[in-house]
Amino acid sequence: MSPRGTDVGELVERARQGQARAVARLISLVEDASPQLRDVARALAPHTGHAQVIGLTGPPGVGKSTSTNVLVGALRRAGKRVGVLAVDPSSPFSGGALLGDRVRMQDHALDDGVFIRSMATRGHLGGIAWATPQALRVLDAAGCDVVLVETVGVGQSEVEVVSLADTTLVLLAPGMGDGIQAAKAGILEVADVFVVNKADRDGADATIRDLKYMISLGRREREGPSWRPPIVPTVASHGEGADDVVDAIEAHRSWMVSHGELDARRQRRAASEIEAIAVEQLREKLGYVRRGDDLRALPSLAKRVVAGEVDPYRAADALIAELGA
Amino acid sequence: MSPRGTDVGELVERARQGQARAVARLISLVEDASPQLRDVARALAPHTGHAQVIGLTGPPGVGKSTSTNVLVGALRRAGKRVGVLAVDPSSPFSGGALLGDRVRMQDHALDDGVFIRSMATRGHLGGIAWATPQALRVLDAAGCDVVLVETVGVGQSEVEVVSLADTTLVLLAPGMGDGIQAAKAGILEVADVFVVNKADRDGADATIRDLKYMISLGRREREGPSWRPPIVPTVASHGEGADDVVDAIEAHRSWMVSHGELDARRQRRAASEIEAIAVEQLREKLGYVRRGDDLRALPSLAKRVVAGEVDPYRAADALIAELGA
Repeated sequence: MSPRGTDVGELVERARQGQARAVARLISLVEDASPQLRDVARALAPHTGHAQVIGLTGPPGVGKSTSTNVLVGALRRAGKRVGVLAVDPSSPFSGGALLGDRVRMQDHALDDGVFIRSMATRGHLGGIAWATPQALRVLDAAGCDVVLVETVGVGQSEVEVVSLADTTLVLLAPGMGDGIQAAKAGILEVADVFVVNKADRDGADATIRDLKYMISLGRREREGPSWRPPIVPTVASHGEGADDVVDAIEAHRSWMVSHGELDARRQRRAASEIEAIAVEQLREKLGYVRRGDDLRALPSLAKRVVAGEVDPYRAADALIAELGA
Repeated sequence: MSPRGTDVGELVERARQGQARAVARLISLVEDASPQLRDVARALAPHTGHAQVIGLTGPPGVGKSTSTNVLVGALRRAGKRVGVLAVDPSSPFSGGALLGDRVRMQDHALDDGVFIRSMATRGHLGGIAWATPQALRVLDAAGCDVVLVETVGVGQSEVEVVSLADTTLVLLAPGMGDGIQAAKAGILEVADVFVVNKADRDGADATIRDLKYMISLGRREREGPSWRPPIVPTVASHGEGADDVVDAIEAHRSWMVSHGELDARRQRRAASEIEAIAVEQLREKLGYVRRGDDLRALPSLAKRVVAGEVDPYRAADALIAELGA
């Protein structure tokens, strides 16, 4: 069956029945920005809104993949259907093949209550912001009770993606100087639950103490009743603490529901998703605006800016004016 | 003198004479997106295009600040006027105050041939892409021969910023597992020069060997004559290797000039800058589009998406349509 010939409605129906291949196919359609993207989005819409979205981030080397793996196990024991979206910055060398730690996730490869998908970010700023929510909607419509979105949480864009989750877990580990590094990366701000992994190592107590101090500093600036992020120690490589993490997620969910925060977050997530699509569409138009016959406006404007003939703000005005619309 | 009352033309003139306060003031004006931003951009344009832009990135803990400091020293000995833009993800806890390592740069605080500026990224996706090039133009117009742009090179957006430099240095260090981590973050692709810092430590040889292997893998996919990134060992904490780095930068510059690549890069940088400004302006419009009296379109569209009444693509269409323009 050719990609163009795919019946989107039928694919969505099969995904809703839990057929992994249909789910994978739908995610490919949204990730590749296929011509059927809009049909897919339309067919998914009525079936979304069920899944609980958990973001999971932290600096490299902290044990994110292992923690995700263990968390999936704990959620499965609780009877949940689970989706995993692993957002990895693309590597031109490997196309992702270097990500050997991903194989650990294969614990769940044969479990038909688990969907696992790696997302490439395709090297442009809006990439993840745009593709991840679409893939999330596929897993939601496919009946996942929980979707885990895992990212390398060190860049601003990755942080934005996980911060759109219902609940965001920030993983740290002792002995990485990660108190200050995490603060640099701004990931403390987005944490609903802190997980201190490798808690059996030297320095775990110091990491927890530093975290508590930083949380207390951060809280001073807020007003009104706010959620105080708990700190959960784990040893993911031994499976220790996973149930505590699940409990912390549930506690956060209950707090959000009783404070009206869950709806508010989901509306912010949708707003951000709509905005990302709109910006992407406008960006596409901007790059391909033609002036006259075969002259693209952006390259010629760029030359004039390099030459100092026009400043970039005037050039941007000219570009937007070309949009017409 | 009130901010509104500032004479932009006079400020630019004083900056061109090398007055540090005028330079700092101009950067503040562009960083804060002041109402005078456009006047500043216009006044700077004719005086830009001189500075050589060097990007410097690498994973946390690799010694970026120390290396920048040492590199500034080497460039100063070569008689260059030097600007430094340190791009740090914003921390809600500190407003940057946690960045204690920045104080090491104070070696050059009293040297009037050096301007040093930390840029906050203000927690939104387009932040760095948008503000950094403007600050760069200020330092360029102020007569800097070289501007170093230093970022924590682990996120996609940071990578994009440094990849816009004339020459991009990627710093690694032994024993951080950073071969694979760097590949994950996609920073190998953007390197024009690899700097292996802490080269006196165990594992430096292995890091260099891994790098050579990865470079050889990456090159297979390219066509035509291409620049082969050299690998320069340094011990920044002892000032060792800084002159070798300067030589490698010069070699890369010569190669670019003889292959027409310097102009091409600068045009790409200007195109990216124009696009970032245009997208930012459109994004601003999108967020504040009003439908009817006091109803903003985006929040109400977001509610409908959450309810499954409309898919995000149709919502984005509606948002763009509201732009009118």
